[in-house]
Amino acid sequence: MRNPQFVEEHIGLAYGAGGGAMRALIEQVFAPGFDDVPGGVGLSAMDDGAAIPLGDGYLVITTDAHVVQPIEFPGGDIGRLAVCGTVNDLAMMGATEPAGLACAVIFEAGFPRALLEKIWASMRDACREAGTTIVTGDTKVMRAGELDRIAITTTGIGFARRIVRDNGLRPGDRLIVTGTVGDHGLAILATRKELAIEGKLASDVAPINTLIRAALAAGGAGIVAMKDPTRGGLASALHEMADKSGTCIVLDERAIPVRDEVRSIGELLGIDPLIVANEGKAVIGVAPEAVDAVLAALHEHPLGRAAAVIGTCTLERPRSVIVETGFGRRLLTEPDGELLPRIC
Amino acid sequence: MRNPQFVEEHIGLAYGAGGGAMRALIEQVFAPGFDDVPGGVGLSAMDDGAAIPLGDGYLVITTDAHVVQPIEFPGGDIGRLAVCGTVNDLAMMGATEPAGLACAVIFEAGFPRALLEKIWASMRDACREAGTTIVTGDTKVMRAGELDRIAITTTGIGFARRIVRDNGLRPGDRLIVTGTVGDHGLAILATRKELAIEGKLASDVAPINTLIRAALAAGGAGIVAMKDPTRGGLASALHEMADKSGTCIVLDERAIPVRDEVRSIGELLGIDPLIVANEGKAVIGVAPEAVDAVLAALHEHPLGRAAAVIGTCTLERPRSVIVETGFGRRLLTEPDGELLPRIC
Repeated sequence: MRNPQFVEEHIGLAYGAGGGAMRALIEQVFAPGFDDVPGGVGLSAMDDGAAIPLGDGYLVITTDAHVVQPIEFPGGDIGRLAVCGTVNDLAMMGATEPAGLACAVIFEAGFPRALLEKIWASMRDACREAGTTIVTGDTKVMRAGELDRIAITTTGIGFARRIVRDNGLRPGDRLIVTGTVGDHGLAILATRKELAIEGKLASDVAPINTLIRAALAAGGAGIVAMKDPTRGGLASALHEMADKSGTCIVLDERAIPVRDEVRSIGELLGIDPLIVANEGKAVIGVAPEAVDAVLAALHEHPLGRAAAVIGTCTLERPRSVIVETGFGRRLLTEPDGELLPRIC
Repeated sequence: MRNPQFVEEHIGLAYGAGGGAMRALIEQVFAPGFDDVPGGVGLSAMDDGAAIPLGDGYLVITTDAHVVQPIEFPGGDIGRLAVCGTVNDLAMMGATEPAGLACAVIFEAGFPRALLEKIWASMRDACREAGTTIVTGDTKVMRAGELDRIAITTTGIGFARRIVRDNGLRPGDRLIVTGTVGDHGLAILATRKELAIEGKLASDVAPINTLIRAALAAGGAGIVAMKDPTRGGLASALHEMADKSGTCIVLDERAIPVRDEVRSIGELLGIDPLIVANEGKAVIGVAPEAVDAVLAALHEHPLGRAAAVIGTCTLERPRSVIVETGFGRRLLTEPDGELLPRIC
């Protein structure tokens, strides 16, 4: 992995933004000195979760803290986000039937019970959609002024016969994205800025485990890598996949599905939809011979209608992401995310 | 369960304090509508964690958010606390060999890297003591002023052949506490108040999974209930055990091990050591015939030297905890914890 960046003396916003600074923090501070998981996937792999060998498969575990602001936004709220984020991370490792979720909630004293009940109803609904439940939890309350309202950490466990990593790309593989990109991030940013156009935008936050299950059933071993483009967006996910596999990803910009309203708001705010979080999408690396079957399976699922092949894996410039715009080529830079805190 | 209390319109500090208010919140808001775990232990059981049937045993999962203030205190820091809290909750369910921990850290922007490295070293050390490792994690950063420095949520998974619940007490069973009580809570409170005497006090924070393993090996099925007396202290743990089993616990006050310095600070602050958190202790319900073996096993372990039989389970006043003082009897009231926020 290339992470020349050195972690500074103070942890700034970029360190939570899913890009290079965060990876440097993990590599330089978090991961060193912890044992790896023999035969599995541990902390140093920096994948979407861990995998512990169990019987003839793996136990998969993944955790995420959620501090999205605002708490409620078009298309969802922090509760739905927490459940979906965790369910989707499990799915990205190949565990599409979550065995259960654990949930720890930290409140600022004075948090309204009515809003909590609304958020909790969202969590229940999202759990039902994903076919799972919350099995255990914890509650802490900080004094007024010590926390901006609420933080929710969800941890998921599941089982997988085969682990799909985010580092499995090989030259020739195709990249599929399961739907439109930029919806969540731009919906959040538009809501924060109280843009009048916001009514047309909504977060894509959804559990995509059944979608991924269908893709895995169709593609089998032809699915070689998966990652959900959350913080840092499609750009960050692709950079990480290219880095870890040592390959180059060449994108066809015109093939990347972006809603018109997302594109418009992105232009208004000066923010590229490719660098903001998605919360109901996956990037899937697929061997050429499995592309048609995987794409057909995705298109049949309500959450995969807009799935598209967006690029190809090559060796021309290892660890890079190149965009073919139709008029030429440019390198896709990785966002540092510092300007987009609390997007999830 | 008796929880006549009704959750108020705003979530106050008591709701995170481990007592009746928190249990009411779980019963009235968190647990309803979530599926139970067939053949296992789910959210509505309000135990130290969940148990999901797996093979001829169970997968155990437990989660805890940590917001202790101050971050560093005599005997430990928030990192050690996070690892031990989770390892100990797993052990309380019977899973004394943790398979791995997940850790989500939320920072306030500007958190010093040097302090993070110190905390992280504590986590590594505590993991080594417990024989486990951190397998996956997440990092979020909130803006300055949005969080008081740091919050760490740890989730643990483990396997157990037999689940030990916190509701298993029967009339005639004995209650053992594995060591002195009140150490953690009074060390934190003394540190906050900058009491000169604080040097003599230290938190008991430690992973007690190997201690519990030894007790279970010695006591077998004679160990009928376990709970770690964290928030709300020994009083809250015993109340919950009495409530859930429908029994009465009669304590011998003179048998409860309390360090002299803890007693002194408690008197100075007007706080009963029985109502403040412990972070390296367990309350174990033991059938009479297994008491000697369990006590001997505890005494052999460095963390169990002060273990003592502190009470007996009866039916005289179901769902109550009675203290025999040597001069008479009193009911032990359950703390509401509102005055002791961020103790863990």
